[in-house]
Amino acid sequence: MDERAVKAAVLVIGDEVLSGRTQDVNIRQIAEFLSPLGITLGEARVVSDLEADIVEALNALRARWDYVFTTGGIGPTHDDITADAVAAAFGRHIDVREDALAILHEWYAKSGTQLTSARLRMARIPDGASLIANPVTGAPGFQVENVFVLAGVPKIARGMLEDIAHRLEGGAVTQSLSIRLEGVREGDIAEILGQAAKDFPAISIGSYPWFQEREGGELSRGVAVVLRSADGETLARAEQTLKSQLPAQS
Amino acid sequence: MDERAVKAAVLVIGDEVLSGRTQDVNIRQIAEFLSPLGITLGEARVVSDLEADIVEALNALRARWDYVFTTGGIGPTHDDITADAVAAAFGRHIDVREDALAILHEWYAKSGTQLTSARLRMARIPDGASLIANPVTGAPGFQVENVFVLAGVPKIARGMLEDIAHRLEGGAVTQSLSIRLEGVREGDIAEILGQAAKDFPAISIGSYPWFQEREGGELSRGVAVVLRSADGETLARAEQTLKSQLPAQS
Repeated sequence: MDERAVKAAVLVIGDEVLSGRTQDVNIRQIAEFLSPLGITLGEARVVSDLEADIVEALNALRARWDYVFTTGGIGPTHDDITADAVAAAFGRHIDVREDALAILHEWYAKSGTQLTSARLRMARIPDGASLIANPVTGAPGFQVENVFVLAGVPKIARGMLEDIAHRLEGGAVTQSLSIRLEGVREGDIAEILGQAAKDFPAISIGSYPWFQEREGGELSRGVAVVLRSADGETLARAEQTLKSQLPAQS
Repeated sequence: MDERAVKAAVLVIGDEVLSGRTQDVNIRQIAEFLSPLGITLGEARVVSDLEADIVEALNALRARWDYVFTTGGIGPTHDDITADAVAAAFGRHIDVREDALAILHEWYAKSGTQLTSARLRMARIPDGASLIANPVTGAPGFQVENVFVLAGVPKIARGMLEDIAHRLEGGAVTQSLSIRLEGVREGDIAEILGQAAKDFPAISIGSYPWFQEREGGELSRGVAVVLRSADGETLARAEQTLKSQLPAQS
């Protein structure tokens, strides 16, 4: 428990998420990827495809959190402005870079795809950035200082995360466990949970109501109590205490 | 097109989303609800259950956007701190309020539920806030100025939105249409799209690659081109132009 907490943020870039057209899954995917590395998300933001908005959000997030992961806006079309916005946020020069170009050349030669001037856009990388391999479609992401620029397509973002795991320095790994209660409402157990939160200050205790429709239309309800901590021993003690006090565990 | 654009933000409050345990669906749900009212999302944030973080994000968002919708953290347990954080952000006093209490009394009387001291927490409403009806579980949300405080459980949040639709003043309704291309990569059509973006500056043109696994494991790919505008006539012209230029529409 003497390791410090390592915290990250996700910046989702894209009108398609804000319009409701696309359901973001990258926040969750990145959280799940980071968790076993001992890194937890402290914040996430979704901004639209406007350079000023991206720059402002990125500068706020990279100053506050250990790592920032952006998703989206690194393709070949006119609305893909992430690389230029990241360069602007860092005050760095950006242009088509030879190493990124070589990757595109090799990738497209294999698949017989033409390297059009539009596709050249995907080789625009800020000065001093290190590339992130894209095992799905070739065009790389990149890292500038504590900022990792990933694709928005979830499969590609996932592939890129594999390439950067070794670049991340994690802290103590947070363990979590869940106690599922059925036929119980939050108000029934709030005092027990409040007392446990006081008795076990090292444990984060969350309480999440759920509703479920059964076959036949009958509605069931309950609460999931989630305990989180990097201290496994105390976590086990808190679980034992709560299980002995809470009703109707399923 | 002379109506001004009305823009809103969503503030998702909850460690359970940042931990990756829960997939947020409220950002999308709120975007879809607002769209036909002529309100679009300009930003979304996810913050953890820390008062300082909620206050900071809320004050930034309510100053910038016409409306802010928060989700999560208004239940009866120790980790439900949204109401107090919103009161702090506005510098307003907060306590158990009689009108909210009356709703809980009536609701619980019907269902034979005890109004415990923990449940009283759900009647904590900032001074001057107007209540938002909760048709699912009774405990109300509330509105302070341009901020609407909703529950985190998606079904409850959806029910609360119905109660506030008439309080929102929308702008011109954004229409959107989508052209689905199969067997095409973004780089193949980037020049056509870039030219159209120049020719139709009133139209927002988005380009979103997709990948799909077919039965038998064969992978297909394509691009969805999405056009958005409050100007239906120009939208139809842009669609016609693009359809005549783009290949392989499915």
